[in-house]
Amino acid sequence: MMPLEIDETHDSSRVSWVESAQAHPDFPIQNLPFGVFSVGGIRRGGVAIGDSVLDLAALAESGLLEGAAQTAVLAASGRTLNCLLALGAAPRRELRLRLSSLLSDVTKRGSVERMLHHANACQLHLPARIGDYTDFYVGIHHATNVGKLFRPDAPLLPNYKHVPIGYHGRASSVRASGEPVTRPFGQLKSQDSDTPIFAPTRRLDYELELGVWVGPGNQLGRPIPIERAAEHIAGLSLLNDWSARDLQSWEYQPLGPFLAKNFMTTVSPWIVTAEALAPFRIAQPSRPAGDPAPLPYLWDEHDQSHGAFALTLEVAITTAKMRAAGLPPHRLSRGSARHMYWTVAQLIAHHTSNGCNLEPGDLLGTGTLSAPTPDGYGSLLEISQGGAKPVQLPAETRAFLHDGDEIEFTGRFEAEGFAGIGFGRCAGEIWGAPGD
Amino acid sequence: MMPLEIDETHDSSRVSWVESAQAHPDFPIQNLPFGVFSVGGIRRGGVAIGDSVLDLAALAESGLLEGAAQTAVLAASGRTLNCLLALGAAPRRELRLRLSSLLSDVTKRGSVERMLHHANACQLHLPARIGDYTDFYVGIHHATNVGKLFRPDAPLLPNYKHVPIGYHGRASSVRASGEPVTRPFGQLKSQDSDTPIFAPTRRLDYELELGVWVGPGNQLGRPIPIERAAEHIAGLSLLNDWSARDLQSWEYQPLGPFLAKNFMTTVSPWIVTAEALAPFRIAQPSRPAGDPAPLPYLWDEHDQSHGAFALTLEVAITTAKMRAAGLPPHRLSRGSARHMYWTVAQLIAHHTSNGCNLEPGDLLGTGTLSAPTPDGYGSLLEISQGGAKPVQLPAETRAFLHDGDEIEFTGRFEAEGFAGIGFGRCAGEIWGAPGD
Repeated sequence: MMPLEIDETHDSSRVSWVESAQAHPDFPIQNLPFGVFSVGGIRRGGVAIGDSVLDLAALAESGLLEGAAQTAVLAASGRTLNCLLALGAAPRRELRLRLSSLLSDVTKRGSVERMLHHANACQLHLPARIGDYTDFYVGIHHATNVGKLFRPDAPLLPNYKHVPIGYHGRASSVRASGEPVTRPFGQLKSQDSDTPIFAPTRRLDYELELGVWVGPGNQLGRPIPIERAAEHIAGLSLLNDWSARDLQSWEYQPLGPFLAKNFMTTVSPWIVTAEALAPFRIAQPSRPAGDPAPLPYLWDEHDQSHGAFALTLEVAITTAKMRAAGLPPHRLSRGSARHMYWTVAQLIAHHTSNGCNLEPGDLLGTGTLSAPTPDGYGSLLEISQGGAKPVQLPAETRAFLHDGDEIEFTGRFEAEGFAGIGFGRCAGEIWGAPGD
Repeated sequence: MMPLEIDETHDSSRVSWVESAQAHPDFPIQNLPFGVFSVGGIRRGGVAIGDSVLDLAALAESGLLEGAAQTAVLAASGRTLNCLLALGAAPRRELRLRLSSLLSDVTKRGSVERMLHHANACQLHLPARIGDYTDFYVGIHHATNVGKLFRPDAPLLPNYKHVPIGYHGRASSVRASGEPVTRPFGQLKSQDSDTPIFAPTRRLDYELELGVWVGPGNQLGRPIPIERAAEHIAGLSLLNDWSARDLQSWEYQPLGPFLAKNFMTTVSPWIVTAEALAPFRIAQPSRPAGDPAPLPYLWDEHDQSHGAFALTLEVAITTAKMRAAGLPPHRLSRGSARHMYWTVAQLIAHHTSNGCNLEPGDLLGTGTLSAPTPDGYGSLLEISQGGAKPVQLPAETRAFLHDGDEIEFTGRFEAEGFAGIGFGRCAGEIWGAPGD
């Protein structure tokens, strides 16, 4: 995916003077993800460290940084991180080096601690103004599972192993974790009727994906070659591509999903940077024997050896009944990110191969990441086999989501000898359709 | 489409003191479209009047306007018209009334003429920052023609007459008329091969569409009812949805067109406002007997009686050979906008029916507007029957576009007793693929 640069920021023995960071599952000092927060009114950039958020606008004015790190922190001081993303990896890495130093050096505690806010007091926002959002389809087990339900005769289409299939999603309805999901109305057509009705979806679902934040991007007409693609991958989030399956099956031909998806997409609000991910990059799994080799514009040896992630992914549900009974979230699946048929670099190279321009802050979804077995399926559609086999919860069952259900994704990067890191929350609760 | 408000700005006897406007095919004083231009460096809003552009930033500072008209002109003074679009119809209409007065009242000539620039000296830009671009498929003859080529067994799918089919396009690659179109590379798979190659498209095409500029829009989760949809339609442009047919046929299943379309979309840079269009609104053609009635959320009597446009559309080509020989453009088709199966208001209502939020400056494409007969087909794919019957030009033939070909769309609104108006240029020339 990108040059492997392990440096002192990844040192697992480095300890922050922010106590809550010291055994934090998501935000130890080895992570340092970027986001946008507000306390009261004004939005500005921040960095998650344990249970705190470091105010980058304050840091920019502190005089503690200089050079490229100061350039980066200034770019991260505004209402969005688009300017930081536009700068590319080098200034971001300089800022990370300085942040790691400031947050571990006890002699700096006095001057830095005043720029920390408790995370509970912060509202988290989308980290960037998303110009365009593109959703891919790299989870081959998901593509096969869904294909069986929508097209029993041809689950995996002939183009799948040649083309990193993707389509444009809706940028305006991407929201940060925590915003409720209003059950959408739409056209529903049952198989035993010739005509649709207009009603709230009955088959509301989630899709477990990774979100990829685009860095500098390219000019229109100037493709990004696969060897340079890593330079444009600023970092990752978790992404929930909420889906209304009944709307989808009726509307999606011939131009693809539209209202079945664009009512909302949830992302975890912290950008876990490419720099933070360096220790967790692993080889892309070999293609099964007989699969076609990718075309040359999608092939890069370094990407193949470092393009995948050592990332465990979980989905949990909390229903209204569970919440009332004080029950903890119930795990729906546990899988990994190893089941991507294409690497993120391949997505960037493919997306721009025709000259299409990516811009700083654009968001790519990977597509649903399902494991090969049901305990790792990334959507209820797959887990419940199209609704036929509802999943058993502590005191009820679910084929699709009910009002009051909350879905939360978690992800954890782990590698021998390194502190594990995560994304923080990516959650949303279903609210009833308006007037319903 | 919207309340029919014919006022003095539509009076065909009103004459501008800008002489070039007096018999201008596109921009007589009855049009007054809004756009963004620059002379030298700074972009700002402008209004086309004959062969001139009125500088709205200068007008905002002139003291000639007040009240809602001044609010509107201030909103139109910046680098984009998003703020003007956000204001909705009422202030825009006030500004239009004042512009019509200032540009016809000879006593104002002295103070206004200094704010005019000759159009030849102006660079025209996109009128708005496009947050999201959505492309629909309302041309039923196009859908049928293309369906026959891509899916001979099922040209018009069962959902077509129930669902205003649409999908998300790429906002970042929308460009104003005049920017060249670089022939895209992509995966091409011939029918007699199992595997694709990566090469410049051999089936580059245009698609004749209308672009719809969104006004105020809606909050996420708050649909726009069909009766209110007109308030969110700020105006129209011409739109060319450039398409690579060979990329499209290989990539489009199951998630729709992607790289076949997102390498570029061209719009005419002037927003012909809803107010200017009042005299040219006509009844939506009745659905053929036997077609299903639209669901209630898509049905509004006023929209049915005023939702279509008296608009003639033409496509012309100029090849490199024709240009060298000094030959005029060759007309490829002449049709009308009457062949939209859904009205623009229905598109707005449908798009937001699930709560999806539209924002000021969003762009909707109608989909290709083909007439029922070949002389009015809106793409080469249809005219050449998938490439099988190349069209005869003065000294050559075309199945699909060659490098050096320029495609220009024109549109003309006409109604008895009113001055006709148009869009200005919507043109692009094909440039060779990089390194090809």
